[in-house]
Amino acid sequence: MKKQLLFFCITAWALSVSFPSYAQVVEDFKPSSVNQTGKKYPQVNSEGRVRVQIAAPEAKKVQLDIGAVKYDLKKDEKGVWTGESAPQQEGFHYYQLNIDGASVPDPGTVYFYGAGRWGSGIEIPAHDADFYALKDVPHGLLSELNYYSKITQTWRRCFVYTPAGYEANASKRYPVLYLQHGSFEDETGWGNQGKANLILDNLIAAGKAKPMLIVMDNGYATKPGNSPFQSSFEDVLMQEVIPMIDAKFRTLSDRENRAIAGLSMGANQTMQIAMNHPEAFAYYGGFSGTSNYPSTETLDANIFLNGKFKDGKAVNKQFKAFFLGLGTAEPNPFPGVVKAFRDMMDKQGIKYTYYESPETAHEWLTWRRALYQYAQLLF
Amino acid sequence: MKKQLLFFCITAWALSVSFPSYAQVVEDFKPSSVNQTGKKYPQVNSEGRVRVQIAAPEAKKVQLDIGAVKYDLKKDEKGVWTGESAPQQEGFHYYQLNIDGASVPDPGTVYFYGAGRWGSGIEIPAHDADFYALKDVPHGLLSELNYYSKITQTWRRCFVYTPAGYEANASKRYPVLYLQHGSFEDETGWGNQGKANLILDNLIAAGKAKPMLIVMDNGYATKPGNSPFQSSFEDVLMQEVIPMIDAKFRTLSDRENRAIAGLSMGANQTMQIAMNHPEAFAYYGGFSGTSNYPSTETLDANIFLNGKFKDGKAVNKQFKAFFLGLGTAEPNPFPGVVKAFRDMMDKQGIKYTYYESPETAHEWLTWRRALYQYAQLLF
Repeated sequence: MKKQLLFFCITAWALSVSFPSYAQVVEDFKPSSVNQTGKKYPQVNSEGRVRVQIAAPEAKKVQLDIGAVKYDLKKDEKGVWTGESAPQQEGFHYYQLNIDGASVPDPGTVYFYGAGRWGSGIEIPAHDADFYALKDVPHGLLSELNYYSKITQTWRRCFVYTPAGYEANASKRYPVLYLQHGSFEDETGWGNQGKANLILDNLIAAGKAKPMLIVMDNGYATKPGNSPFQSSFEDVLMQEVIPMIDAKFRTLSDRENRAIAGLSMGANQTMQIAMNHPEAFAYYGGFSGTSNYPSTETLDANIFLNGKFKDGKAVNKQFKAFFLGLGTAEPNPFPGVVKAFRDMMDKQGIKYTYYESPETAHEWLTWRRALYQYAQLLF
Repeated sequence: MKKQLLFFCITAWALSVSFPSYAQVVEDFKPSSVNQTGKKYPQVNSEGRVRVQIAAPEAKKVQLDIGAVKYDLKKDEKGVWTGESAPQQEGFHYYQLNIDGASVPDPGTVYFYGAGRWGSGIEIPAHDADFYALKDVPHGLLSELNYYSKITQTWRRCFVYTPAGYEANASKRYPVLYLQHGSFEDETGWGNQGKANLILDNLIAAGKAKPMLIVMDNGYATKPGNSPFQSSFEDVLMQEVIPMIDAKFRTLSDRENRAIAGLSMGANQTMQIAMNHPEAFAYYGGFSGTSNYPSTETLDANIFLNGKFKDGKAVNKQFKAFFLGLGTAEPNPFPGVVKAFRDMMDKQGIKYTYYESPETAHEWLTWRRALYQYAQLLF
């Protein structure tokens, strides 16, 4: 027994000496799914660690900056820096490199618009990634549409998803979902990071969602001379985008065939738009956000949003589906904000569907899952 | 007279001391048109110089790497590095920053795929930029289409331009132009850098080109196990892409309503495809490239491309337009390559349209102009 203990202690000591910090890292790294063609780095391992590598022979200090933590890389004799992060949660994460104080995109990845800039992103593979995978099912088109806004007096852009069969069925008309991004993101988010087109391709192919159009616009819209905080997005959407889409595409344009949803800032915006325009939308989806953001205080339905939720029966009649989604790992204030809103809804006797995405934070995996759930309730 | 000379010399000396090198730089820099929203740098001045700026407080050396020349930046007391290039030619240029030996994208620009990577690009404003400007004319859609190739056994992607009116005119059928990128570029090039959609929007609105579809695929296609040099692009295009487009969109699918064109490597590829498939294409466009690349040797029509140009009368009958374009500032071997090809064409009595883009190099302004010319000859 003593011998066994001695052997155990020596072995443990030897291991701890041989692998001071790397002992923790599982060496099963693979190139990230969102790398540029042919690039070996960044890589992700089974723990969700992100390993980056960059040649910077003259640099003094190179860091990986992900999840608000900076990790020092180590230089080899050839001037190539390598290092990895702590395990990250499943899903999509923005990150950057810091080279002697300069914050730059990692040249290994394709780039995404988020956090207010085009920059690097990485996927920590999700166990349920199949629902947004590119599969052998009929694929719709994701189309870029430029339009001039008389309200903002600028050129703007939206993306329009048309489901498989839209081209062939030249007489068929389709319902429409208006789907908005969050703060510091733009109209490219739901296609690039959100995989909205692939989620709908898969749902429609499985018969779980009705064929529909999805319109993804830019939630930032300001009249000339106005402050960026005076948003004109509601006017742009209602007076310009919806009429344009109904004229340009074969849509069903009654309220029963029009849905709206958004994530975070977009959830806040679209809730206000849906409540201001009961004639326009029969479905609402709020992913990781409600219009009481950032407050977690108890809501008074008599005054919140000018009393729009005061008459619970009227709200129940207004919406064929009212959906709220949240990740269980979201940071404050989101859980408290959504809870305060749900408490108000419950008090008013308003029906809604509540979905929790297991172990995901305030990021795109939460929103992909929320869209997957929400789309099945529509039309 | 002596006094005047003395005054002149003193003034000249004073100026030369005060403005050692910056005396040459015209200080009318403006943010580049392809900057990320809100970014002040990079900037371009009226001479075509590119000025970049990046904070890198701990760096020893930061350079701007553009047009195969590296320009040293200078650091101010806050650790911000600034500097500019020599004047660049009108048009589109890829570039990068070098920070202590690390080559990275400039965080100020949006990113483009070219030179084999997603990275920074800049526009030196062209005097004739109006023909590809985003203007108040009816706009077509630029659509992303995922498809599975049984030949390469991979998912591939193409972009499809449908002209304004395509959605509304549900019974009308349209001719199609297949348009290819160059080497180290991909299917995003003609939309992002080439502005093919805007060029056609403007031409069609002016009545100078017929409404047409444009299909932009990826010219790199390899069967599993084959070397990247054994291209299967011709098979993918002829056996998979064209049938898919004709099935999915309302096309006119006879040879008289199908054109093909490409730039550089794409010009080479599409010439071979057009000559191998006289049943499929009635129009060819080669922008900055021909299939004798990189040779500038005299061509023997009896053996070049297996004698496909041997029978000049047959070739004249085959094509309703055969177009060649070249920039007058293109580097070797392009001018010699195209000249050798034209000499062969002349000798064979084959009719073609030759267009020279004034003072542009082997870059996208040459190819935008070539498309502008070529599209007017079609259908």
